[in-house]
Amino acid sequence: MPKSKDLPTMMDVAREAGVAVGTVSKVVNHQPVGEEFRAKVDAAIEKLGYQYNSAGKALRTDSTGIIALIIPNTIHPFFAMLTNYINMALEKRNRRMFLCFSEFDQMKEDEMIQLARTNRVDGIIALTYNPNLHIPEDVAFVTIDRFFSSSVPCIASDNFAGGRMAAMKLYELGCRHLAIMRTGSTLTNEPSKRKDGFVSACVELGVRFEVVDMPDDTPLSVFMETVEKQIHDPQVPLDGIFFGTDLLAWQMMGEMQKKGIRVPEDIQIIGYDGIRMFGEQKPVVSTIVQPVQEIAETCVSTVLSSHMATMPSLICLPVHYEEGGTTKDHMAE
Amino acid sequence: MPKSKDLPTMMDVAREAGVAVGTVSKVVNHQPVGEEFRAKVDAAIEKLGYQYNSAGKALRTDSTGIIALIIPNTIHPFFAMLTNYINMALEKRNRRMFLCFSEFDQMKEDEMIQLARTNRVDGIIALTYNPNLHIPEDVAFVTIDRFFSSSVPCIASDNFAGGRMAAMKLYELGCRHLAIMRTGSTLTNEPSKRKDGFVSACVELGVRFEVVDMPDDTPLSVFMETVEKQIHDPQVPLDGIFFGTDLLAWQMMGEMQKKGIRVPEDIQIIGYDGIRMFGEQKPVVSTIVQPVQEIAETCVSTVLSSHMATMPSLICLPVHYEEGGTTKDHMAE
Repeated sequence: MPKSKDLPTMMDVAREAGVAVGTVSKVVNHQPVGEEFRAKVDAAIEKLGYQYNSAGKALRTDSTGIIALIIPNTIHPFFAMLTNYINMALEKRNRRMFLCFSEFDQMKEDEMIQLARTNRVDGIIALTYNPNLHIPEDVAFVTIDRFFSSSVPCIASDNFAGGRMAAMKLYELGCRHLAIMRTGSTLTNEPSKRKDGFVSACVELGVRFEVVDMPDDTPLSVFMETVEKQIHDPQVPLDGIFFGTDLLAWQMMGEMQKKGIRVPEDIQIIGYDGIRMFGEQKPVVSTIVQPVQEIAETCVSTVLSSHMATMPSLICLPVHYEEGGTTKDHMAE
Repeated sequence: MPKSKDLPTMMDVAREAGVAVGTVSKVVNHQPVGEEFRAKVDAAIEKLGYQYNSAGKALRTDSTGIIALIIPNTIHPFFAMLTNYINMALEKRNRRMFLCFSEFDQMKEDEMIQLARTNRVDGIIALTYNPNLHIPEDVAFVTIDRFFSSSVPCIASDNFAGGRMAAMKLYELGCRHLAIMRTGSTLTNEPSKRKDGFVSACVELGVRFEVVDMPDDTPLSVFMETVEKQIHDPQVPLDGIFFGTDLLAWQMMGEMQKKGIRVPEDIQIIGYDGIRMFGEQKPVVSTIVQPVQEIAETCVSTVLSSHMATMPSLICLPVHYEEGGTTKDHMAE
């Protein structure tokens, strides 16, 4: 594959940075080099848009043994679990991970894509909400929970089946007026299907239901308005809510208890994710559990696969329901 | 510094691995190289104990921009928080992190030390329980919560002050028969001082106290025996417990509630760490909060410091008390 005349060369980078070509070579190859030099070369690479190996995926048979994981943070327990199992899956295969946080910097993805294009990482696994992400075809890129295009494999829990499962379970436990409440309405992604699956099952069951689908950072009081209104519905009071995440379910449980609404006596609630206190106890709310370990394994085996072209574009992994004290499972037994 | 004749050379590694010297050079410098080659070279490096740059710390002026973090996992919320803030501190300085789990493999530390000695990482931050760890002098190594020697800086929260603070707080809240309960008795490290500080304050206060200091994995029933015996003490019933970690406090709270012992009405409890549900709520128990962000910043600035020799060997960062529903703070106000 002949290089286009327009593409900057290593020599261009060296000239721009005011360093020797050997120094540029060291930087793009993670070799030890003085810090000021690395900073200068990085700046020049960025300025010129230099790509160390522009021949792309087809020619990529070499490996650095490094995969980048882009994730908002490791504070939220779901992200912490994902990071844990992805790193375990990489270590098992003798790979190492660059951990990159996207939360405070929407340019992180581009930075990592640049590292991948210059062959300084072998591939990227990303859980990102960046709406403007452009993923080049020549980079081994796997996303979690977010479908970009058929050439970028997306790994997710079976969100649609999970939403259906939540509705079915609430119905089975005696609820006759359901609601789905979630945030994230502004970005259509895989988790949006939790709502779609829930609605699909409600329609099928012929049960009454509400949909409260709001943007991120909606105050809890907005959801409480619907709860307080519908719980006093004279015909069929609201008695079962499926929340888009365990975090929202857990926060709303607190709000409801402040108002004297008892969980699960007055309202049964089911969340989504499978968050456990200290990572090892029973779930903090009754929940649809994501198969985090399987998601992690699949991300790693997919990003490392040399046959990326033959991979499915969306892989959904099965979820299951687990009781966590916010539903009447034991009373129904 | 002349090389000893006994030290293996890059040529020895190449011969052992059956590859070209250039291939060995690529591997030790994180350059892209075919996977089988990398595996062969890694095996040969390990077998021969080859060190890429044996001249040591004194000559280390170059940098790869990579720091290894060794931590048991990212599932436990305290480890997840530490990982989060250490990675943020590294990203702020344009460094990247290799995340290494030590939980299932006590050899991880040695592997990373080997990478550091061959200049493939700039330094190591480790929270490790490995009792047999040998840290060579020529590696930039910082530990969390564990003192190895005066040449290895140890960063920790002020465990002793935290233990004192817990005793003082329980006393201030009306407790007159205290106990410290913890696991980890087999390894003397910085967290052991939580007990020492607690005892120091109890002696000073002249208050009655129990010490239940057990090995890891001690079943909760062992701690419950002391609770059930001392709570019925005819003179001064047990009414305040300081647990070595929030996890133990939280687990024991569950056990006590099963036995009809009310928290905080019958017994007030304080944990240690500052774990919050979903990382953003109020602490799960009343607790001595570790300054995780400051610990992370200090670890990173210390490991990157080029004047490691002048660093203190133990840096203790201040803790504070925070109410979490398991103490009578509001009743006392």
